Amino acid sequence: MRDHAVTMLGTGLIGDFYTNTLHGQRGRDRVRVVYSRTADRGAAFGQRWGIPEHTTDLHAAVRHADTDVVVVALPNHLHEEAIAAVAAAGKAVLCTKPLGRNAEEARRMLEMVEKAGIFAGYLEDLCYTPKTLKAVAAVRGGAIGEVTWVRSREAHPGPHSAWFWDGRLTGGGAIIDLGCHCIEIIRNFMGKGNRPVEVMCHTDTLVHPIADEDNAVALIRFESGAIGQFEVSWTFRGGMDLRDEVAGTGGTIWLNHFLRTGFEMFTAGGSGSYVAEKSESEKGWLFPVGDEVSELGYVDMFADMFDAIDAGRAPQETFYDGYLVNGIMDAAYRSARSGAWEPVTAEWRGGTTARIGSVSELYDGQVVIKRELLPDGRQKLILKDPTTGDFSDRIIAGR
Amino acid sequence: MRDHAVTMLGTGLIGDFYTNTLHGQRGRDRVRVVYSRTADRGAAFGQRWGIPEHTTDLHAAVRHADTDVVVVALPNHLHEEAIAAVAAAGKAVLCTKPLGRNAEEARRMLEMVEKAGIFAGYLEDLCYTPKTLKAVAAVRGGAIGEVTWVRSREAHPGPHSAWFWDGRLTGGGAIIDLGCHCIEIIRNFMGKGNRPVEVMCHTDTLVHPIADEDNAVALIRFESGAIGQFEVSWTFRGGMDLRDEVAGTGGTIWLNHFLRTGFEMFTAGGSGSYVAEKSESEKGWLFPVGDEVSELGYVDMFADMFDAIDAGRAPQETFYDGYLVNGIMDAAYRSARSGAWEPVTAEWRGGTTARIGSVSELYDGQVVIKRELLPDGRQKLILKDPTTGDFSDRIIAGR
Amino acid sequence: MRDHAVTMLGTGLIGDFYTNTLHGQRGRDRVRVVYSRTADRGAAFGQRWGIPEHTTDLHAAVRHADTDVVVVALPNHLHEEAIAAVAAAGKAVLCTKPLGRNAEEARRMLEMVEKAGIFAGYLEDLCYTPKTLKAVAAVRGGAIGEVTWVRSREAHPGPHSAWFWDGRLTGGGAIIDLGCHCIEIIRNFMGKGNRPVEVMCHTDTLVHPIADEDNAVALIRFESGAIGQFEVSWTFRGGMDLRDEVAGTGGTIWLNHFLRTGFEMFTAGGSGSYVAEKSESEKGWLFPVGDEVSELGYVDMFADMFDAIDAGRAPQETFYDGYLVNGIMDAAYRSARSGAWEPVTAEWRGGTTARIGSVSELYDGQVVIKRELLPDGRQKLILKDPTTGDFSDRIIAGR
Amino acid sequence: MRDHAVTMLGTGLIGDFYTNTLHGQRGRDRVRVVYSRTADRGAAFGQRWGIPEHTTDLHAAVRHADTDVVVVALPNHLHEEAIAAVAAAGKAVLCTKPLGRNAEEARRMLEMVEKAGIFAGYLEDLCYTPKTLKAVAAVRGGAIGEVTWVRSREAHPGPHSAWFWDGRLTGGGAIIDLGCHCIEIIRNFMGKGNRPVEVMCHTDTLVHPIADEDNAVALIRFESGAIGQFEVSWTFRGGMDLRDEVAGTGGTIWLNHFLRTGFEMFTAGGSGSYVAEKSESEKGWLFPVGDEVSELGYVDMFADMFDAIDAGRAPQETFYDGYLVNGIMDAAYRSARSGAWEPVTAEWRGGTTARIGSVSELYDGQVVIKRELLPDGRQKLILKDPTTGDFSDRIIAGR
Repeated sequence: MRDHAVTMLGTGLIGDFYTNTLHGQRGRDRVRVVYSRTADRGAAFGQRWGIPEHTTDLHAAVRHADTDVVVVALPNHLHEEAIAAVAAAGKAVLCTKPLGRNAEEARRMLEMVEKAGIFAGYLEDLCYTPKTLKAVAAVRGGAIGEVTWVRSREAHPGPHSAWFWDGRLTGGGAIIDLGCHCIEIIRNFMGKGNRPVEVMCHTDTLVHPIADEDNAVALIRFESGAIGQFEVSWTFRGGMDLRDEVAGTGGTIWLNHFLRTGFEMFTAGGSGSYVAEKSESEKGWLFPVGDEVSELGYVDMFADMFDAIDAGRAPQETFYDGYLVNGIMDAAYRSARSGAWEPVTAEWRGGTTARIGSVSELYDGQVVIKRELLPDGRQKLILKDPTTGDFSDRIIAGR
Repeated sequence: MRDHAVTMLGTGLIGDFYTNTLHGQRGRDRVRVVYSRTADRGAAFGQRWGIPEHTTDLHAAVRHADTDVVVVALPNHLHEEAIAAVAAAGKAVLCTKPLGRNAEEARRMLEMVEKAGIFAGYLEDLCYTPKTLKAVAAVRGGAIGEVTWVRSREAHPGPHSAWFWDGRLTGGGAIIDLGCHCIEIIRNFMGKGNRPVEVMCHTDTLVHPIADEDNAVALIRFESGAIGQFEVSWTFRGGMDLRDEVAGTGGTIWLNHFLRTGFEMFTAGGSGSYVAEKSESEKGWLFPVGDEVSELGYVDMFADMFDAIDAGRAPQETFYDGYLVNGIMDAAYRSARSGAWEPVTAEWRGGTTARIGSVSELYDGQVVIKRELLPDGRQKLILKDPTTGDFSDRIIAGR
Repeated sequence: MRDHAVTMLGTGLIGDFYTNTLHGQRGRDRVRVVYSRTADRGAAFGQRWGIPEHTTDLHAAVRHADTDVVVVALPNHLHEEAIAAVAAAGKAVLCTKPLGRNAEEARRMLEMVEKAGIFAGYLEDLCYTPKTLKAVAAVRGGAIGEVTWVRSREAHPGPHSAWFWDGRLTGGGAIIDLGCHCIEIIRNFMGKGNRPVEVMCHTDTLVHPIADEDNAVALIRFESGAIGQFEVSWTFRGGMDLRDEVAGTGGTIWLNHFLRTGFEMFTAGGSGSYVAEKSESEKGWLFPVGDEVSELGYVDMFADMFDAIDAGRAPQETFYDGYLVNGIMDAAYRSARSGAWEPVTAEWRGGTTARIGSVSELYDGQVVIKRELLPDGRQKLILKDPTTGDFSDRIIAGR
Repeated sequence: MRDHAVTMLGTGLIGDFYTNTLHGQRGRDRVRVVYSRTADRGAAFGQRWGIPEHTTDLHAAVRHADTDVVVVALPNHLHEEAIAAVAAAGKAVLCTKPLGRNAEEARRMLEMVEKAGIFAGYLEDLCYTPKTLKAVAAVRGGAIGEVTWVRSREAHPGPHSAWFWDGRLTGGGAIIDLGCHCIEIIRNFMGKGNRPVEVMCHTDTLVHPIADEDNAVALIRFESGAIGQFEVSWTFRGGMDLRDEVAGTGGTIWLNHFLRTGFEMFTAGGSGSYVAEKSESEKGWLFPVGDEVSELGYVDMFADMFDAIDAGRAPQETFYDGYLVNGIMDAAYRSARSGAWEPVTAEWRGGTTARIGSVSELYDGQVVIKRELLPDGRQKLILKDPTTGDFSDRIIAGR
């Protein structure tokens, strides 16, 4: 394991989260230099996190002699320029989500890093929450059979910084901000080799006086027949709603990452302390999380990234993943305009996935639809006659 | 308050639930005669519930001299004939859900009862759960502002009786069985005067060897701009999943009717007792509900029905509601085939509803997008310049 | 089933709950006359609930020609006089909790009704919540093996009426108000034939400027060896905390009757509606219950009482139960003063209960303490040598 | 921040947890040598965790030239000898819980490290769970007012290793194993300067054929008047129950560390993967935790320990804390025998704490007991006459 020295580009909320994680609990990797567009913010950030140097020169920061990894924590419209600079410098690059404002932009960034042959990681933290990692492992291990449906929901009252609200800078509204998380969570549960075929999406701007969507719901049909469903909102009240649900032929998973995690507090007021990233109130019943950077996935995400660099392997989340997420979001926006299913046209690098299999069980020449244990202890079969298509109940055991 | 004597048509699971409710806790209304297609089942049912008479003659049951109310608890394809018989007899009729197999059939039943001038109630129990009634009242009282989104989910491993699986008899699959509940729950939260305009739906048959859908997700766009979302499944594992979520401009509601209601039990096995309608296992962690007929709405539903008869008023759920639900399901099935939004073409008897209103607040000539209280106590506005469309952060108070 | 006409004594909050229950959902039993110490309150109560007559003459109310059942919903210090009046009138009597201010007073009431030979029910609603009834039935059915421990907790910020705070009128503080519920819940789970042997209790007055306890914790040792534990508080913040936990040799039960029942609502404020009996706030996250009178047990309690009268059987909760609860509370108060375990000296009418049985399993001549399945699939026994008392691990199966 | 090289004494489950934590996510501190009583176990452990050296010579391991910190992860009866060896070697020592088998033994260990002047940390992981740390900080910040009551509960079906069951080696049963956690959690919420004055405890051996207690409940009275309550069990069914509850004059905190943390999974079976430390079943509803070593406090615990060594400060949990915990457990065992409150006789090094303060508010010369907002909007005071002690209701505002 090597110690890495990091160039941090950007000093917003996400830069704070990243640096908090890197400089947290006995870690060996540290931010060496930070870039901000304004000297004051850079200086304050450096002081806050004990970073030796800050600069307003992006290229100088990227090329800094002591760093080997560059983290891009800038607004969406500045990703491409930053990636280009890192590619030119030949360093490893880790870029925050979403990768691009659209698939075309993401495609160019993907090509840059592939051409430069550098390590490139996609910083999709919510795919790395400890719950998600363990749940995905359980699904891979067969705990819930074949996945039929994944719901990923992310909703809060709206972003904290002005630029997030400007679709010209971000590429859209709540989908670009939150949907990218949901889509990649869904892909992890579906299996990354399961091709996203087409998307149906509804968007609307119901509350905020902006041009982009503040609410959206979408369905993604995968090659296996499974459906991914994401719901994003900038108008949710009550905190930050971060939940995932997975249905399989042999089980069910429910994850709650924020509002109901076994930490419940009622306060009559007067605490004055910062409770959670998106808490709406300061008194009454509050639902903090324990260790935000751990529970939101930042710790495991950076561990995977640096371990992957050390091991010369690809990280769990790559620039290709980021590009594909942009491709799915592009299809969602197209569908919201057309009112119909729209194909995902991004380049597919995975293989093919078989349709969810339903193997028919036969009983006495009839197809078994369901086995039931009745309250009185009898066992019942519901059968279908393969010839007539008629259904019947049959008691096969019990009193 | 008058005591009512009931003719019960049907002796299946739903007939048991209905009679259990009517004969439960000190009620004044009793089943006087029960009709079953087979004498044995009628006799057993009568004995189980202490009903004086049973018959295999539907018309005799309907015309029985001592009864004034007829409850239709028959499979879907038998509703129309039964309603016609009751209309001819001039008695009050209460019909289980769904009203018809499609809107056209429901339309005929609606016309029959309107022509006959009889009281006609639609037995949609889940709109009457105590939680739903209180939550709807809170929404009507303004507790969550304007409703922007309602999710209603009903999922279990599949129905208990053979006929449910035969789309020729029922009119479809999981949508006809479960979606009718979700749609009417959604309408209650939206406000019944809020017109359902169009529907987008995806269906698939993923697990069971049947011709109809065992999974479906749909969006319903209402005139106000709000979205109703229903998810139904006959392939859910883990019990019966009955949840509703409501988002409003000023609040949020989460209801869980079955699996997480404050009753949690671990058993190492050996109990041997019937835990809940759709529990899948007999040991491990189980989640019973307290009083099923009360918590699933049957008690309040029948109270409303009989009170409405006594008061000469319409019940909360009418045949028109049942007809409209069929109209929305018809649109869902059309959308599943077309892959596009499909209009709800059922006759609309409500008025018009204004679009969800977003009133812009101005600050210094700029549109206020969001107010934030920063962790350090400062207050920040996110503003939008109405001329350029540019967004900016502005600190307006604090250190 | 007969229709009963009720004399209601008392017009406080509990009188409202009782009448709301009796006059609710299609019930056949009605309040015919209400007694209040002040005419205004009687009149208002009568109007609120549609009661034909009200009076300030307790004896006239009790002897009213049209009623056959008298409900005592008066402050604790007025129970004895009221019971005496009903006993003299020879009618059925239902008395609210606690029966007396102490066991001696309760004893006199018990003797009155036994001497008069009248039906006497103890209105302990929380033993009748649908969850409790179903959980107790599951325990009786063997679902959790032998009960080893029951925790019952009731806590809120303090009572609503002045007289509750005056120990001279009530007999004590939070124990008399809330502990009586907990004790009887515990007894139902333990089995009513399981003798409460001794009590250890700590009380304190931590917050309110009163003479009686506003907080108490107690342990009750039952003859089987099982421990009942009650926690009561008049200083809880956040609503009303009503939870029970039961541990058995073969299982676990957790009940939450109020704050987490599957109904969660966030409101930014302005609702203005009454949310729940003991809710502390009007905005933020709120946790209403569905149907309070049902979920708190009132519906099932009155059903049991009137059904018992009709059937000529004893109700689930009798005056003897109320007397025994007073006896346990007396022991708790004695223990709080002595700082030691105090015996329950109330007359015991039950039988004897065997000690919780631990049957030893032997393996290879050693006592099996525990069987474990290791993560790697091996099976391990923890064994105890009966001669030396030494413990050892032994792998008995697996790779 | 310095990198530390660790001598690990012990290769049991706790040694695995410790090493898993130290070698986890990009940490800078590594185990350099491991000691086991048997060479095979040492070799397997070394291979499992990539540790360069293993030995069966405890003193050699302690004195190893490359290590500066020794972690004692041995059974209880071996702590004293190990601490003595480390004190002689003059290295920093971190010792697992409980410190001693009783206060006298703990006292000797405390004196050894104080005399040697070495850094000594008490590895009480559950005081370091992220939820506990944040909750304790909220309490310190005033979020719930003055603490009146803390409940800490730890229950599971019994330990995994033979020696745990032998009270001669451990010092007792469930109290020594689990109560030590609960006591120190309680002290953290109470404030470490709040003196534990006396203890009331009940123990019993209900299920397992052992000489020590498999169930215990205890109350600890603190100088402020607040009550700590711990419940420990080796007979719990359903997994591992790890919950804390804190009541304050201005709020409430509920923590659930294991069974309900926002991760819920139903599996029809066949997963075959290790779900959680103390899960009882492999199918049905399971409740895994995300990242066990983080959520159970190991990550933050070691971070505090090494940071404290680097900074030359005391850690959050010291040998004095461990000694005091033993002192409280000693009092608990004495109380279980005497059936009465027993004083905590361990040396007290903290100061004094004032009694929980109740400041009386006056209204019109009367003591205000409670303010209420009635459902109809009126405001009511419950008042106490300071002269007569009489209580009254008074409406002070509204309609």
